[in-house]
Amino acid sequence: MPNIDPEMITSSKNQHVQHIRELLAKKAAREEHGSFVVEGVRLCEEAIKSGSPPRMVLYADACSARGLELVQQAGTVGSKVFFVKHDILDAISDTETTQGLLMVMQTHPLRLPDQMDFVLVIDQVRDPGNMGTILRTAVAAGVQAVFCTPGSVDVWSPKVVRSAMGAHFYVPIVLKNWNEISDLCKNQQQPLTTYLAESADGQAHWKADLKSPVALVIGGEAEGASAEVKAGVDAFINIPMPGGFESLNAAVAASIILFEVVRQRSV
Amino acid sequence: MPNIDPEMITSSKNQHVQHIRELLAKKAAREEHGSFVVEGVRLCEEAIKSGSPPRMVLYADACSARGLELVQQAGTVGSKVFFVKHDILDAISDTETTQGLLMVMQTHPLRLPDQMDFVLVIDQVRDPGNMGTILRTAVAAGVQAVFCTPGSVDVWSPKVVRSAMGAHFYVPIVLKNWNEISDLCKNQQQPLTTYLAESADGQAHWKADLKSPVALVIGGEAEGASAEVKAGVDAFINIPMPGGFESLNAAVAASIILFEVVRQRSV
Repeated sequence: MPNIDPEMITSSKNQHVQHIRELLAKKAAREEHGSFVVEGVRLCEEAIKSGSPPRMVLYADACSARGLELVQQAGTVGSKVFFVKHDILDAISDTETTQGLLMVMQTHPLRLPDQMDFVLVIDQVRDPGNMGTILRTAVAAGVQAVFCTPGSVDVWSPKVVRSAMGAHFYVPIVLKNWNEISDLCKNQQQPLTTYLAESADGQAHWKADLKSPVALVIGGEAEGASAEVKAGVDAFINIPMPGGFESLNAAVAASIILFEVVRQRSV
Repeated sequence: MPNIDPEMITSSKNQHVQHIRELLAKKAAREEHGSFVVEGVRLCEEAIKSGSPPRMVLYADACSARGLELVQQAGTVGSKVFFVKHDILDAISDTETTQGLLMVMQTHPLRLPDQMDFVLVIDQVRDPGNMGTILRTAVAAGVQAVFCTPGSVDVWSPKVVRSAMGAHFYVPIVLKNWNEISDLCKNQQQPLTTYLAESADGQAHWKADLKSPVALVIGGEAEGASAEVKAGVDAFINIPMPGGFESLNAAVAASIILFEVVRQRSV
């Protein structure tokens, strides 16, 4: 056990346990406190690496040596650390089998860079798994910011956090109305062209000039982007599908275009 | 109700109900009978469109008019049609809310084309959602065949079928050992180069010659491709990730390279 003399939690009615339950279950609680929950050794490792100190750490018997090291590091930077009975952690956990480790982190740990030339805008994406995959892929591709419109799933919800695999700690993710996003893109020193990935219209993604500053806009699984966004973007781009089977998952479509940006800027 | 005079099923112990339960639950049953189950109006529409006659159709009260039309079409091509009580269909269904329609279809409805220049090989992909997304994307990209090695999840399982959204009816999907796949690629009139998508090694995906005949090999989520496959492919290709976050979902990695093939062959 790490030498940080943790407080013990032995009751599921403990106030901190109740607090974490709320953060996991309710978007309003996450917004009120500006906190979200990360679970498991791998995600907690990304949390610690990010340099943002955990607000609270809960660990249990099941926590591995690698996990205990993270607990210790969190203690060193001043996080409140609690040792909890395994079944209590198991009961609050959003995962099927808890790894005996959970951290409460501050939402929005990162600031927007002053200048941007590669951003992603997410509109109406409802599926948490898709959202997480999009965030993870966007970070791999090197986007400098992600903007979400209010029509999308909450990016700080436990399912999104889990499937994003740590992306939240690498890129600023900001909730904004389309108008604000559009203004922000236009007001860059080098204005960003906003491209909507649309299955029906526009030029082939490899024909669009993605070397110049771009904001790539991804619409939702069901209905695509909202009418406001469709009307407001500078241009449509489209992924040609020679197989005659016109259906790509939203995360797949996003990935193909994100990495077309990478390709164009590398060759 | 369609004028096909369906037999009624009123007991969950009915032999056909038992048979469908087995097909949904067991790979061995699917292999023994060469049958798999598709559920819901959209997938059944793809099934009917494929021209392969359903072996059996079950529908219930909840079936929509669009669904009933499919029931009728199946009756016309000689499928056995059964009307079942809703709660029986609901109980066997693999989906959360049944749409009152289910068809038993023949696995492997499509034959391999004589000549191929764009195939996908799937090795060690275990997650049904990833497998389905990969199949769906491969069809959209226009691959002519998909080969799966025995280390992957069964492509005819209900979760894969659901997330592939009908891809099973558009492309031959064949289970083969790596040696057989490799031989088949080499023995084409124009031999296919086998490329493994590897995160650590190889040339950037846009630098590989994907205009020439290719077999793209995708490894699994956890450990990548098997040692046999790694040793047997002609070359490695790699997706450069400038974001410094080295992690792409297997379906995302597959999609990026599949559509790089499309791009190279279109420009």
